Amino acid sequence: MTDFLKSLSESAEAVNLTLERMLEMHDDPEAELISAMRYSVLDGGKRIRPYLTIASSALFNVKPERALRVAAAIEMVHCYSLVHDDLPAMDDDELRRGQPTCHIQFGEATAILAGDALLTRAFEVLSDDTTHPDANVRCDLVQAFARAAGPEGMVGGQMLDLIAEQCDLNMPEITRLQRMKTGMLIAVSCEAGAILGKATEGGRHALHAYAHDLGLAFQIADDLLDVEGDEKTVGKKTGKDEGAGKATFVSLLGVERAREQATMLVDQACEHLDLFGEKADSLRNLAQFVINRQA
Amino acid sequence: MTDFLKSLSESAEAVNLTLERMLEMHDDPEAELISAMRYSVLDGGKRIRPYLTIASSALFNVKPERALRVAAAIEMVHCYSLVHDDLPAMDDDELRRGQPTCHIQFGEATAILAGDALLTRAFEVLSDDTTHPDANVRCDLVQAFARAAGPEGMVGGQMLDLIAEQCDLNMPEITRLQRMKTGMLIAVSCEAGAILGKATEGGRHALHAYAHDLGLAFQIADDLLDVEGDEKTVGKKTGKDEGAGKATFVSLLGVERAREQATMLVDQACEHLDLFGEKADSLRNLAQFVINRQA
Repeated sequence: MTDFLKSLSESAEAVNLTLERMLEMHDDPEAELISAMRYSVLDGGKRIRPYLTIASSALFNVKPERALRVAAAIEMVHCYSLVHDDLPAMDDDELRRGQPTCHIQFGEATAILAGDALLTRAFEVLSDDTTHPDANVRCDLVQAFARAAGPEGMVGGQMLDLIAEQCDLNMPEITRLQRMKTGMLIAVSCEAGAILGKATEGGRHALHAYAHDLGLAFQIADDLLDVEGDEKTVGKKTGKDEGAGKATFVSLLGVERAREQATMLVDQACEHLDLFGEKADSLRNLAQFVINRQA
Repeated sequence: MTDFLKSLSESAEAVNLTLERMLEMHDDPEAELISAMRYSVLDGGKRIRPYLTIASSALFNVKPERALRVAAAIEMVHCYSLVHDDLPAMDDDELRRGQPTCHIQFGEATAILAGDALLTRAFEVLSDDTTHPDANVRCDLVQAFARAAGPEGMVGGQMLDLIAEQCDLNMPEITRLQRMKTGMLIAVSCEAGAILGKATEGGRHALHAYAHDLGLAFQIADDLLDVEGDEKTVGKKTGKDEGAGKATFVSLLGVERAREQATMLVDQACEHLDLFGEKADSLRNLAQFVINRQA
């Protein structure tokens, strides 16, 4: 596991450098926008989604610099969603990864625009021919990202999450909500490697299935951290779901069964990787890491 | 001019139908998001940007159904920017085209998400192979849209606009602000026809130059309407710029010189169309319409 943690942190470092280069500061009066984008995206997250892209790309011998660009685009989309999610009209969070959230630091208007700009820049990066020489691959990436992030994916899931505050969801409803809100972006992080590597349908499906199970396990682990985690280690407010009266996997299953469920999902996720052999060990290690993390 | 108005309204009708089909309602609990997207985009605007795409596409014999899809994507990007711009943290507008703004009608959280979803859907539409069979064309469209809408374009311009409230801008600064905030999306509306039609560099540049001048004329006309327009006809609050102490083309040049400047820009815009001959008459008529409109 120490080797895995080293590889996770090396990959995070490479993603940060790529993001830095993609969001270069300048002297124009509107540079505050770039500052807010950098602040929101260069904040030392674990870069789990980018790692998925890098590790899945390695299965198909994709050039690392291409995988890195797509990994950075994924992180921009993820961070844009956090910035908007943290806004007062949404979750109204003041702390994120131990730092003031974007709107606390830069004001609400700038935070809205910084989120918009990160989303837009992600699509610019994906469609740029530096990302892949084959335009079909680039279009495939744009399509996959847009579907995962759009009204049938992440944004739809955020909408469901808003509604969930006013009604009690059951297990299938929560599963659907989480699949849309976080699962589909996690899935596209994995599938990106298959797209970049022009993998067979079988390879792409295996990664999709792995990511589907991983995404749910990831969410259960998040819910467990919200209940059991220490605010300082987690880097954001805990106990929020219970306070908001929100149904979660943990509130419905209880702590013990939720943990069992997460373990079962991770085992199941790893089985989908069998066809890749040892090459997929980094994805297997990531899955174990996801349910054992403390933050 | 009556023929032109008929063609403008026919094109708006076709764009509306296309948008309706792209944003189909469903029964899922998060459908409120689709309602908010439809509300924001199907509100009977004049569809000037889509008209630019349709008219510029016609110059290169682009299939109308392809032009319509790109025109609809442009309108989604435009309307997303309006939804976010109207938010309380931004311009705090309650009226848009004579109707309650999205956040008044649906609440702030839903409005933020509806804007996000419209932007994302636009990129999904552009990268879909129904839009153009050649993936290079589709990537070119995504690139052009992302640059026009991103931090060096529209969103950067909105950021400048926020800053402008706290300082007096001079003419070059206002010109740059408006070029970013509205000009670049107008330019890409025109260039889209050249991209779809695989036009020569010369053709694309001519359209860009036309759009550049048109965009400024359009903004001056907007500023004039804010000063002279009737709230009921304009469909939104007037006198806002002066109230906010904002420098505009009109506050810097005065009403008469601003109107002269707009006329001069429209003449100049039309000159760039010379190489297209009579085929570009619809673009010439649009330019005249833009500075003579009452709303």
